[in-house]
Amino acid sequence: MHLITVIEIIAILVGAFSGFIEARRKRMDVVGVFTVAFIAAFGGGTLRDILLDKRPLFWVIHEEYAILIFVLALVATPVIRTLRQIVSERLIVIADAVGLGLFSVAGVSSALDAHMPLFTASMMGVITGIFGGVMRDIVCNEVPMVFRDGKPYAICAFLGNWMFLLLGMNGFPHDFALWSSATFIVVFRLVTWKFDFRVGR
Amino acid sequence: MHLITVIEIIAILVGAFSGFIEARRKRMDVVGVFTVAFIAAFGGGTLRDILLDKRPLFWVIHEEYAILIFVLALVATPVIRTLRQIVSERLIVIADAVGLGLFSVAGVSSALDAHMPLFTASMMGVITGIFGGVMRDIVCNEVPMVFRDGKPYAICAFLGNWMFLLLGMNGFPHDFALWSSATFIVVFRLVTWKFDFRVGR
Amino acid sequence: MHLITVIEIIAILVGAFSGFIEARRKRMDVVGVFTVAFIAAFGGGTLRDILLDKRPLFWVIHEEYAILIFVLALVATPVIRTLRQIVSERLIVIADAVGLGLFSVAGVSSALDAHMPLFTASMMGVITGIFGGVMRDIVCNEVPMVFRDGKPYAICAFLGNWMFLLLGMNGFPHDFALWSSATFIVVFRLVTWKFDFRVGR
Repeated sequence: MHLITVIEIIAILVGAFSGFIEARRKRMDVVGVFTVAFIAAFGGGTLRDILLDKRPLFWVIHEEYAILIFVLALVATPVIRTLRQIVSERLIVIADAVGLGLFSVAGVSSALDAHMPLFTASMMGVITGIFGGVMRDIVCNEVPMVFRDGKPYAICAFLGNWMFLLLGMNGFPHDFALWSSATFIVVFRLVTWKFDFRVGR
Repeated sequence: MHLITVIEIIAILVGAFSGFIEARRKRMDVVGVFTVAFIAAFGGGTLRDILLDKRPLFWVIHEEYAILIFVLALVATPVIRTLRQIVSERLIVIADAVGLGLFSVAGVSSALDAHMPLFTASMMGVITGIFGGVMRDIVCNEVPMVFRDGKPYAICAFLGNWMFLLLGMNGFPHDFALWSSATFIVVFRLVTWKFDFRVGR
Repeated sequence: MHLITVIEIIAILVGAFSGFIEARRKRMDVVGVFTVAFIAAFGGGTLRDILLDKRPLFWVIHEEYAILIFVLALVATPVIRTLRQIVSERLIVIADAVGLGLFSVAGVSSALDAHMPLFTASMMGVITGIFGGVMRDIVCNEVPMVFRDGKPYAICAFLGNWMFLLLGMNGFPHDFALWSSATFIVVFRLVTWKFDFRVGR
């Protein structure tokens, strides 16, 4: 299995896991738990693909990921309990940051393929990274967390996306631009999380 | 008028009616009542078609159904009162179950036409059957009922959709597969409703 | 700069401004303020284009408008304060009415280009005019204002859209139909606002 596949699966599972937690907090049944986890995991990329008019969607091509979330949702209660015992909050934040870095930059790349202009492409990357969580919170009848906690989550993605765009415009190889920008997002996110940095309202 | 057209109209009216009730409960005006009824009736199929990138949408082809809801919304208050007097809750549940059966299996069929893989096709059927109600509840600022009441509504659709897929894969004629699966969903839904069966959280 | 460009920019700014206010009221951070303003300004046209399957989206073609909202969101607090001092509520209502007139009729025209039937085209115009505000309110976890205040906002757009359709069907030139219908919407909206007219629930 390629490294990128492993990262992808872990990042999707972290997204789904955030949906499990939120759906349980709202006392949802198994249908709600699965749907909210699915939206949290795939919502951002799906919205990006609808805006770009790209098909087939990621979770149609990789149906195995959707099935994995389906199976986990059937046993969400023990899954949540087990994960909370064996995985620290720190590990979840790290896995989530890796997912944010990877999916944001991949979103920008996908928007460039669809001939989007630069600012739009940078936004498509942010949408990919954050709108899963936004839709999860809307379905759970909450004001989206990423819009109100003041933590530079979307901002990390936005800056890293521009690093990717600028490296590409200045002739750096695509792979180098992608990996260094994704790494930048991960590190920036973890540093601001570590020091509990907030943006002013 | 074909039987299927009659069933279609009744099922759409039941969806719209659920929107009338919910919008009124939230003290919406006529614009809200119409919009929520429209979303409740057509939202699931519209989301499916957007995900599958199919056009024209159902309510564009059958504009007469949209106009019917528009006219009913103008007189929603007497419509609700009259329906409540002449139609029992039992009849509404039956009509809704028939709609769930018909639209879910039709949604799977539509996804197969668009070359979706099996699990995705089964999900597209469930989305067709339940997301009208999900969007209705989101617009009305509620946690979607279908995600929290523990009643096997989406589950009936899911199992019936797989019955349709398995019958088709095993060489049964399309029409037999469609009607028997839709019937299965209707019966399963009504039996679980009758005995107030709940899935564990 | 053409008159229509000036009107367009002002109408978009009024939409974004309504997002600034609502996001601030919900104590959102800068990411939320930008996103809600963006959705309020472009959400209606984006939904219409997704339903019609039209690309590229308005805010991709006119990326400069998205960047303008981005820059304003960074300084939203002084922008709101300044605007509240120099611009009266009356002026904001007028600018918003002009935007409603322009974008509604433009939405109908866009739907006709996509070969939509008449009722659907009139609805697409209303969606263009009101769904930015609807989505803004949903993200802010409120029942959409336009569905519950009883003010004939969507109704003005709906009637003006039919005026546009009827003028076109009766052979009037496209430009005359467009401008007279947009003007009708603006005047009707301002008159009903002035006299605080409400539709019955």
